[in-house]
Amino acid sequence: MKFSRLFMPTTKEAPKDATLPSHQYLVRGGFINQTGAGIYDFLPLGKIVLEKIKTIVKEEMDNAGCNEIQMGFITPMSYWDESGRSTAMGPELLKFKDRKGADYVLSPTNEEAVVNIVKNRVTSYKDLPLNLYHINLKFRDEARPRFGLMRGREFLMKDAYSFHSTQEDLVREFNLMEETYKKIYNRLGLEFRVVEADSGAIGGSGSKEFHVLANSGEDTIVVCPDCEYGANIEAAVRKKRHFDAWFENTNTPATMEKVLTQDLKTIEDVSNFLSVAKAQNIKAVMKKAIYEENSEAVIFFVRGDDELEETKACNSIAALELEDISEEELKAAGLTPGYCGPFNLPEGINFVIDSELENEVGLACGANEEHYHFVNTDLSALKDAKYADLITVQEGDICSCCGGKLEYTKGIEAGHIFQLGNKYSEAMDAKFLDQNGKSQSFIMGCYGVGISRLVAAVIEQHHDDKGCIWTKTTAPFMVDVIVSNGKKEDELNAGLKIYEDLKSAGISTIIDDRVKERFGFKMGDFELIGFPYAVVVGKKLQDGLVEIVDRKNTADKIEVSIENVVSKLQELI
Amino acid sequence: MKFSRLFMPTTKEAPKDATLPSHQYLVRGGFINQTGAGIYDFLPLGKIVLEKIKTIVKEEMDNAGCNEIQMGFITPMSYWDESGRSTAMGPELLKFKDRKGADYVLSPTNEEAVVNIVKNRVTSYKDLPLNLYHINLKFRDEARPRFGLMRGREFLMKDAYSFHSTQEDLVREFNLMEETYKKIYNRLGLEFRVVEADSGAIGGSGSKEFHVLANSGEDTIVVCPDCEYGANIEAAVRKKRHFDAWFENTNTPATMEKVLTQDLKTIEDVSNFLSVAKAQNIKAVMKKAIYEENSEAVIFFVRGDDELEETKACNSIAALELEDISEEELKAAGLTPGYCGPFNLPEGINFVIDSELENEVGLACGANEEHYHFVNTDLSALKDAKYADLITVQEGDICSCCGGKLEYTKGIEAGHIFQLGNKYSEAMDAKFLDQNGKSQSFIMGCYGVGISRLVAAVIEQHHDDKGCIWTKTTAPFMVDVIVSNGKKEDELNAGLKIYEDLKSAGISTIIDDRVKERFGFKMGDFELIGFPYAVVVGKKLQDGLVEIVDRKNTADKIEVSIENVVSKLQELI
Repeated sequence: MKFSRLFMPTTKEAPKDATLPSHQYLVRGGFINQTGAGIYDFLPLGKIVLEKIKTIVKEEMDNAGCNEIQMGFITPMSYWDESGRSTAMGPELLKFKDRKGADYVLSPTNEEAVVNIVKNRVTSYKDLPLNLYHINLKFRDEARPRFGLMRGREFLMKDAYSFHSTQEDLVREFNLMEETYKKIYNRLGLEFRVVEADSGAIGGSGSKEFHVLANSGEDTIVVCPDCEYGANIEAAVRKKRHFDAWFENTNTPATMEKVLTQDLKTIEDVSNFLSVAKAQNIKAVMKKAIYEENSEAVIFFVRGDDELEETKACNSIAALELEDISEEELKAAGLTPGYCGPFNLPEGINFVIDSELENEVGLACGANEEHYHFVNTDLSALKDAKYADLITVQEGDICSCCGGKLEYTKGIEAGHIFQLGNKYSEAMDAKFLDQNGKSQSFIMGCYGVGISRLVAAVIEQHHDDKGCIWTKTTAPFMVDVIVSNGKKEDELNAGLKIYEDLKSAGISTIIDDRVKERFGFKMGDFELIGFPYAVVVGKKLQDGLVEIVDRKNTADKIEVSIENVVSKLQELI
Repeated sequence: MKFSRLFMPTTKEAPKDATLPSHQYLVRGGFINQTGAGIYDFLPLGKIVLEKIKTIVKEEMDNAGCNEIQMGFITPMSYWDESGRSTAMGPELLKFKDRKGADYVLSPTNEEAVVNIVKNRVTSYKDLPLNLYHINLKFRDEARPRFGLMRGREFLMKDAYSFHSTQEDLVREFNLMEETYKKIYNRLGLEFRVVEADSGAIGGSGSKEFHVLANSGEDTIVVCPDCEYGANIEAAVRKKRHFDAWFENTNTPATMEKVLTQDLKTIEDVSNFLSVAKAQNIKAVMKKAIYEENSEAVIFFVRGDDELEETKACNSIAALELEDISEEELKAAGLTPGYCGPFNLPEGINFVIDSELENEVGLACGANEEHYHFVNTDLSALKDAKYADLITVQEGDICSCCGGKLEYTKGIEAGHIFQLGNKYSEAMDAKFLDQNGKSQSFIMGCYGVGISRLVAAVIEQHHDDKGCIWTKTTAPFMVDVIVSNGKKEDELNAGLKIYEDLKSAGISTIIDDRVKERFGFKMGDFELIGFPYAVVVGKKLQDGLVEIVDRKNTADKIEVSIENVVSKLQELI
């Protein structure tokens, strides 16, 4: 390809709201064009990258025995009513009416649609397993679309859906998909981590995320340096901690008693006053839980030195989301802010206790009475109390797999695989006959890759202060032959010869044959766009020499004779 | 590929509303699945065909020097307000609001979006011409979605948009696109015709349609058997007819006079009564014209033996559409149904006269008075009357190019190319600097191919009463190796060997290795799905023989020895 024939409008100006390198460089390099909030056009260079990523994903899905289909982007609302997600997905699900008043949805995902395809077409366990995938547009009406392609509203996703007759077979496919995804991210040249994840609105049990590691990643992931363990902060677990009960170290009797704590409200003050560790105090985190139909005050109890993980907390009570709650609302619910504890709560108040505290003794907590706390509590006394994992794993916490010290790192979620179970098949009455001739709901898995997000993720992981640095498999072209001065016929001809030679050798090449642009500008475009290599045809041509520049290290230039350009590049690539 | 590994749910049942062969067979053959009115999923076989067509289109567009991009499917309403099409496109343009109340559109076409990409990025004539294309979903909220993929609402289209500094350069590109399209339809193995067309809502001057010839085609196209002339019925023209004026053959004086015609209202009766040919009578066709803001009665005058072509009539007054009008509405407008003519019309009535009648003399027409007609009219007396081509060309009319007799044929519109001019660039203020440093609006062309419609069009042209007959370039697989009895190990092994040999020879092959299905069922699937060839591995295997079946003529079977299967098929293909 020639620069003069390809529409690649580079610019010095980045959008004002572009904080991420990928957002800045993809716009500046002429890869994408914004049309609306979270909606982008792919310009020629961006389209080439997008297709390269699509092709790799398609090849690996096909290799894994999946069947490619293409489901409609527009789906009837009736599908979403059947599964219950027409309300459960909230305002991210964009709904509209057609000219006849019929209700439709811009598909944000396709579980319902794929179940409708398989339902009544697959009737026997003999036709299972089946894994159908498609690579198609999606729309999620994000409240805050931002970061360019990273968090768009219209985006390209590969989503696959598998159908099984047994849970074991689902697990087999889930593992196959994990291996397939690893191949995909490896082929893309990305450093990534597979982590345990929260299943979110998709539902089901057991899911893993694939994170492209990058400082700018929106997600905090918890990793163990000593073993394979990794998890999204929303799903991370640690080794359970235990602290000796108070009375085990003191002479205080092991019975719960109420003590006057005056105006002391914070965990720190109360712990100091009572001479207990913060971890031996119970912290109450009060929230307003929003459900489909109503809302209520909910209290989450965690150790004094732990922080509440909101996604875990939200999942523990199956709420749509959690909001902050005002002191007035708490008082209206009969609560005593600053002195809340799990004992003697007003009737009917919903609360959840962190699982680390299950049956713990010797802890302090608020007495639900102004100025008072309890000490020496015994949580096993709370019959029917609900326990769930509620806390945020901290750096330095102990890995439950190997005992190593957990660390934080930043990741971009670029893939997510789920063991769905029969959530959708059950809701939509999609059944098959098993080996015993018994009617069963399909057991399902689903597997997503954010194709357009990956375009940005590659750049978040591979860039410098000059622009993009594409990996070899994602680069729009591998080599940019830069003709220093397009007006000099010998330079242009030598460049064209090298360009043709490289193409003949099967190396994808573009030539910067522009006449009106100066060398510095062409070099700037090379760095901004980020082709892996440049061949500079310039002054040394009279000595039969050109320069090869590696985009990763543009300062180091390799001088080679014209005859050796192809072989040298083949060696480098 | 193996039947046992591919989801290809064939069925005997066609949808009740499926009248077209393509609709029936694509559903029955497991190619597509309907989800809503005019919305379809592509199942694995359908997706393969779709991709084959896409690839051919992409290759030819790339060969023609076009740049592939991908524009958003969702576009902001502001784009459509700028061009004026937010109202002009009527209810086919599906509009919706996002969660923040912002207005968006499901793109039915992308002139506005592409102008927004080019605007301010291309600033000089030196960067022209430029032709950007994309292959992406479209949505048109058709009043009556029907015929399966033929007239869907969500569909896949290749749309290209070119930008030029001169009209001559646009014509050059327009011709290049015509040649490119011819290559595409030829490569797809389709019989087609390029015809003159009406530009419709896209606008601009000069457009051509590419029609796949098929009896079921929705469009009537007018073709000349003696020359290259072809046109959509909406745009077809004929050699102008002339009839001697009445007074040239009679003794009647050549002045207009009013004659009593009693209750005679039809052209036939009046012509008989006046002893003139029907063609020498002026017929009034009365309609209600619908505009964006209002509506009115409009009269179209054509020769007594001509029929009004509604699209031409509608275009002649720039109305959105024409509706039938009631006798009451006509009378309310001061008109006299049955006796309408162009002379002495009530003040302010809008009317158009067919161009064939321009300045004609000696015609009869209604006198706008109950029971009376005029004879010996002279249309040149009507100053400022508006003339336009209004009539439907009939079979047997004379070709204006060569004098041949025009014929009708049926076609499926599968491509449309337009010379847009500066309609959109002007409306959206998209300009470049020309050679003289003067600011000019871009001159544009646009070029569409209905990718998903082509899947159906191939079948409309290539099917029989048993099912689909794919052309060689569109077939999901070229050869279907049918193992007669999957339980017989020797048949299965021989089949697998042939399958591997064909694949090694580069022939795309599928093997029907299903164990539970009988031979007749497998043969039925072969015929329904429509692979070009089958290799039947059956009883003659013991003699070292298999049968090759050509889907076009399934009765003729060619017996070949196993060793010769590959070479024989290579010869046939």
